[in-house]
Amino acid sequence: MVTAVRQTDLLRQSMQPFFTFFSGPFSQLNELPDVANFAVGNPQEMPLPEYVAAVRGHLEPQDAHWFAYKISEPNARAVVADSLTRATGLAWDPLDVQMTNGGFAAIAVGIRTLLEPGDEAIFLSPPWFFYEALILGAGATPRRVKLEPPAFDINLAGIEDAITSRTRLVLLNSPHNPSGRVYSLEELRALADVLERASARTGRPIYLFSDEPYRRIVFDGRTFHSPAEVYPYTVISYSYGKQLLAPGMRIGYLTWPPTMPDRERLRDATFLYQTVSGFSFPNADLQHALGDLEPMSIDIPHMQLRRDRVVGELRRIGYETTNPEGTFYIMVRSPIADDIAFSEILNRHKVLTLPGTIVELPGWLRVSLTASDEMVDIGLPGFERAYAEATGR
Amino acid sequence: MVTAVRQTDLLRQSMQPFFTFFSGPFSQLNELPDVANFAVGNPQEMPLPEYVAAVRGHLEPQDAHWFAYKISEPNARAVVADSLTRATGLAWDPLDVQMTNGGFAAIAVGIRTLLEPGDEAIFLSPPWFFYEALILGAGATPRRVKLEPPAFDINLAGIEDAITSRTRLVLLNSPHNPSGRVYSLEELRALADVLERASARTGRPIYLFSDEPYRRIVFDGRTFHSPAEVYPYTVISYSYGKQLLAPGMRIGYLTWPPTMPDRERLRDATFLYQTVSGFSFPNADLQHALGDLEPMSIDIPHMQLRRDRVVGELRRIGYETTNPEGTFYIMVRSPIADDIAFSEILNRHKVLTLPGTIVELPGWLRVSLTASDEMVDIGLPGFERAYAEATGR
Repeated sequence: MVTAVRQTDLLRQSMQPFFTFFSGPFSQLNELPDVANFAVGNPQEMPLPEYVAAVRGHLEPQDAHWFAYKISEPNARAVVADSLTRATGLAWDPLDVQMTNGGFAAIAVGIRTLLEPGDEAIFLSPPWFFYEALILGAGATPRRVKLEPPAFDINLAGIEDAITSRTRLVLLNSPHNPSGRVYSLEELRALADVLERASARTGRPIYLFSDEPYRRIVFDGRTFHSPAEVYPYTVISYSYGKQLLAPGMRIGYLTWPPTMPDRERLRDATFLYQTVSGFSFPNADLQHALGDLEPMSIDIPHMQLRRDRVVGELRRIGYETTNPEGTFYIMVRSPIADDIAFSEILNRHKVLTLPGTIVELPGWLRVSLTASDEMVDIGLPGFERAYAEATGR
Repeated sequence: MVTAVRQTDLLRQSMQPFFTFFSGPFSQLNELPDVANFAVGNPQEMPLPEYVAAVRGHLEPQDAHWFAYKISEPNARAVVADSLTRATGLAWDPLDVQMTNGGFAAIAVGIRTLLEPGDEAIFLSPPWFFYEALILGAGATPRRVKLEPPAFDINLAGIEDAITSRTRLVLLNSPHNPSGRVYSLEELRALADVLERASARTGRPIYLFSDEPYRRIVFDGRTFHSPAEVYPYTVISYSYGKQLLAPGMRIGYLTWPPTMPDRERLRDATFLYQTVSGFSFPNADLQHALGDLEPMSIDIPHMQLRRDRVVGELRRIGYETTNPEGTFYIMVRSPIADDIAFSEILNRHKVLTLPGTIVELPGWLRVSLTASDEMVDIGLPGFERAYAEATGR
């Protein structure tokens, strides 16, 4: 068991690439008006007017308890359970929905609830920024399994190899940030088979932690599937920060399907850790508004057109890119090996991207489609000039 | 070092009295219209109209980043630093203000940052509901020091006795929930002397964790003093949930004075743990509005009149009570030894209070002045009938 001093060092080390980028190039360029900002899944256009109207409407107090202490409110739980019942065909139980102040809190509470010191947790790389830190923060040991670009298929053999008798959970993110992959029901079934076999072998269930904040951000008429449809020991985290593109107004949830064994115990333990993590429930205004917010979304067909335009133009210039099935992100291979160096060239051409090194994928860049159309207009020529400068072509 | 299984059990045990009450009598009576609700510091009257107007006004987006990811925003930090500079006479540094989604998160992040497994932390009893759980959650060992009713003076001798070479912090809450004591600068100086001597003896600083959510809720023209004025190793947690009586709209902060040694290291470590605890920053709307919210308050002179009325009437009936110097709370001695049994008698007379047992003070009841005047009107006769029923007088 690591001591906290050692843990603080490990945490710092695990978050260092992130902080280096965000306190460096990001903070220098993020709010400049003439920069094409593809760095993160942050809004670059004015918020949805219907979003502002919904939150404003539900800010008007209806009773004395309108802004009283809130935990997971019955109305918000019902909205989520109803949505998940429709999406999965499983009769979701509102009591299995734990409302959190954002998806990050859902992941943090879920990981802390499921993991004990001495446990191991598997995450897939390239990962979201903080999976490793959250596993370390629970006193558990992270095990990294690589997904190979450009396909980024679920690495079943790698997962099977990484499982030991101490493995307590596997973290899956679909639609996958940063690759844009949306895993099919068949691929999820194959993963479920691996986990079922391994659970039988080790004698205790391996949880599948399904981080699904991009479940609504899918292209080309795809249907998203949650592994909860095929694997009972699935714990889902969700954030409304993507579909509403308002990540500074935090609401999300942690939940599991009605097929989960021993659900009452999980509710109880989650509530303990959600409390002790600092009362990470969403604010009253957002919970009151959730019925209106649930069906609301940024314009996904328009984002798909933007994807087509950016992928088409970057490929025309000479870049290798993914063609994302979902999420906000296109992965672009750096034309020189050093993606940090190339991102600095892009910065000089007023284009801000996320170097792949920050998400454990050196040699690549992540380009967010939350950039506005105007940013795409000025950004594409910047990509072209940077390509010419780096390659001499 | 406890394992997490053992930790979960300890956490559950530590929170059990709270959950028993809140899932029992509280949840049955809390929202009934004919109940005089003195149970917790929750609003029983409509929110302040100026509060709603301020949040609504700052909900109107001024730019594309209005609802983007927010950490501790410069404007909010400046508002807090300015307020603390005026209150303490110390030139508060905005970079030492960490904005959190409520006071609970500030305490959770602060305790997790300061404590390592193996450390000990002293808290004063009767305590706020979750101090012990938060200390346990950090893997540290809680040490309880009793404050004696009805004076509830800082127990310097008890603290001195409880300090060992492993003591890392002492938790102080002033104005003190539930006793209503507001400790004077002289009393704080005496505590600082004890901690300075002990720090010199053990060779490492003992932090004073000063939980100050009621700093604005003081009566009879008192001036609140923070121990930060006299003890550099002071870490302050604050919640706007009391002065605005909107605890479901969470904003607070963790901070320390400019006299704190090694401030940069503390900022860095706090940011790590604030991130890993689940990104516990306040929502964009509340941070934008903080300049308007800071000077705003519920009507304290009116609450003082309510205190005078309730204390006067309860004493006339025959109860022994405190006369709080601050906070929302009057402590009332149960006329029979069993405070839970007496609170059930009160419940039958449509009066909801918090049994002292829930806050480690059996034989007493906590009565919150956030009850409306109408609740006081119907509640006082209920107190009188319950007294007669319990005592036969």
